[in-house]
Amino acid sequence: MKTIRVNTGRPYDILIGRSLLDQTGAQCRAALPRAKKMAVVTDSTVPPLYLERVEASLKQAGFQVLDCVVPAGESSKNVENLAALWEKFMAFGLTRTDAVTALGGGMVGDLAGFAAATILRGVSYVQIPTTLLAQVDSSVGGKTAIDLMAGKNLAGVFWQPSLVLMDPDVLNTLPDRDFSSGMAEVIKYGCIADRNFFDFLTAHASREAVMDEIESILYTCCDIKRNVVEEDERDTGLRMILNFGHTIGHAFERLGNYETWTHGEAVAAGMWDAAQIGFGLGISGGDDDGMQELLNLLKAFHLPTHIDRLDDGLDGKAWNAVVEAVGLDKKNSGDELTMIFLKRIGEAVAVTRKKDTVLENLAAIYGRS
Amino acid sequence: MKTIRVNTGRPYDILIGRSLLDQTGAQCRAALPRAKKMAVVTDSTVPPLYLERVEASLKQAGFQVLDCVVPAGESSKNVENLAALWEKFMAFGLTRTDAVTALGGGMVGDLAGFAAATILRGVSYVQIPTTLLAQVDSSVGGKTAIDLMAGKNLAGVFWQPSLVLMDPDVLNTLPDRDFSSGMAEVIKYGCIADRNFFDFLTAHASREAVMDEIESILYTCCDIKRNVVEEDERDTGLRMILNFGHTIGHAFERLGNYETWTHGEAVAAGMWDAAQIGFGLGISGGDDDGMQELLNLLKAFHLPTHIDRLDDGLDGKAWNAVVEAVGLDKKNSGDELTMIFLKRIGEAVAVTRKKDTVLENLAAIYGRS
Repeated sequence: MKTIRVNTGRPYDILIGRSLLDQTGAQCRAALPRAKKMAVVTDSTVPPLYLERVEASLKQAGFQVLDCVVPAGESSKNVENLAALWEKFMAFGLTRTDAVTALGGGMVGDLAGFAAATILRGVSYVQIPTTLLAQVDSSVGGKTAIDLMAGKNLAGVFWQPSLVLMDPDVLNTLPDRDFSSGMAEVIKYGCIADRNFFDFLTAHASREAVMDEIESILYTCCDIKRNVVEEDERDTGLRMILNFGHTIGHAFERLGNYETWTHGEAVAAGMWDAAQIGFGLGISGGDDDGMQELLNLLKAFHLPTHIDRLDDGLDGKAWNAVVEAVGLDKKNSGDELTMIFLKRIGEAVAVTRKKDTVLENLAAIYGRS
Repeated sequence: MKTIRVNTGRPYDILIGRSLLDQTGAQCRAALPRAKKMAVVTDSTVPPLYLERVEASLKQAGFQVLDCVVPAGESSKNVENLAALWEKFMAFGLTRTDAVTALGGGMVGDLAGFAAATILRGVSYVQIPTTLLAQVDSSVGGKTAIDLMAGKNLAGVFWQPSLVLMDPDVLNTLPDRDFSSGMAEVIKYGCIADRNFFDFLTAHASREAVMDEIESILYTCCDIKRNVVEEDERDTGLRMILNFGHTIGHAFERLGNYETWTHGEAVAAGMWDAAQIGFGLGISGGDDDGMQELLNLLKAFHLPTHIDRLDDGLDGKAWNAVVEAVGLDKKNSGDELTMIFLKRIGEAVAVTRKKDTVLENLAAIYGRS
């Protein structure tokens, strides 16, 4: 088992190890010595797979357990489910010293984390991510949220978990497409912070090869994220580099109503666009910029690198979407735009440029120049 | 104008001064230099009185202003209004550097504070309390909340304001009953922390006399609360002394469905019960315990000191309610109970005793022994 200590305002451990799921109870007991009750929030795809094991382990460690199952899918991340969780927690008799466990993918982690952060003005919570995307991204960093009618993740708080438990074995039941989606974020870490890790991934460019080294891959991703989150717990500066590929990726997600492309697919195409723009702006170096290697790695995991093909039936809609994303990004105002680019593989920079200049470079990619 | 600096995680100022309402814009500009938009949350009783002045002042200081008016009354502190505020903020185009103002009593402060704390994972907010109760109690300390079906204030977060603006002149339009209700909390501060202040109140035991010294009275109350909140921002220890009179007071509030008695009235009766129990348990001193003085002061402000009279038609219900409150208090478990008592006027202590022992003393008060 590998351990990462995250030194945020309230420090916590990320534990990574095969079959860790069966140690849930003992590990929660160690992290939360005063807790008597545990509300386990999960989605409808998880119970047949893992809920029973987690529950048995918690009970064995002396916890009283309440199951809260929400329907699978992003649309469950809404205020109605949040309010329903609050009422369930109270009916269960949860107190300030008790805790909540989020067992599932990013949707479950965001929703359950927000509910835990706000019931009784905040109780402890444990993240048990069951998707690769949640393991390397959303379960670490303390961002919780629900979606509003006005957009995704608009209501939420920063609330650090008390423990993150990652059992790589749960990935065995993950569909290929979801595995690849998670790999987009894994590759992102190589791009923004660790050239050696990027090369390691290139040498392990298949699901099987990745699974052979999964503990160490999860460790590296979470350790990079730990480093960024410790520096910038509330997302006011450095944390922005985690957004490589996301400004444009979010535009693709929206364009597909969060159904056509997964988060990882949209981010993969967004990374490739951003890499090319960075190259066009002269931010990335010359020969050794690793552009081709990035392209190869994304393709090896069957991730899209461009979203605008005629056979998508998009007919210029993707172009419009990225233009809008560049123009309206909520972290930017006025004529200028700050976006994450790669100086080279392994090193990201936030660069502020005129929006028009960025759009000119985008135009070349979309054959509009 | 008087200023109190509150050194919580994120420090802020409480400003107290007559006609301060007209300086709202300038003071918000100074506290929030980057904010461009301000969403003003208020209740339906406030607009005819103060909303226009506050809005004009904000606009003069260059803020774009959005009004969000919720119906007056505790029942507005619900998840539907919270979600409606979130959507309104986003439709207004609020960004992370913008802010929210809570203009009203405790309900508005709790609801608007919670909405501000959770939109975009937290934007700044300004408290402009317009009742005495909100000025001396809920606007300071960063507790935000809404009510659930399961009970009051069960969902919320700790989120410190960026500025608290208190204009004592707004109290001139407060009905007598609400003024007295606020005085219960004012008297509480004397009881738990400041004998001289208690004596000062005894020497100014009328609404008129209080209003003559209102700036200094608000200052003293907020300064006592500041001291407690700085020591215990997240309510895990010392802050408990602010609950003097509240364990039993909350039982009375519930008993009257939050309609029969105001919060202050219930707390007044709860303080008097707690004072008597403390006397019975030998926690308060002998002759010099100030029991009679407390009784006189509460009565001078027309506050109830006992809730169980036959002409209340309660027929033992108050007794049952306090028994239940003592038995089920959410901060207590097992056979023992921790409650706030007075060692003497000006000094509170948290004391843990067997619930049975406390109930025996209660029985004497309710003529059940």
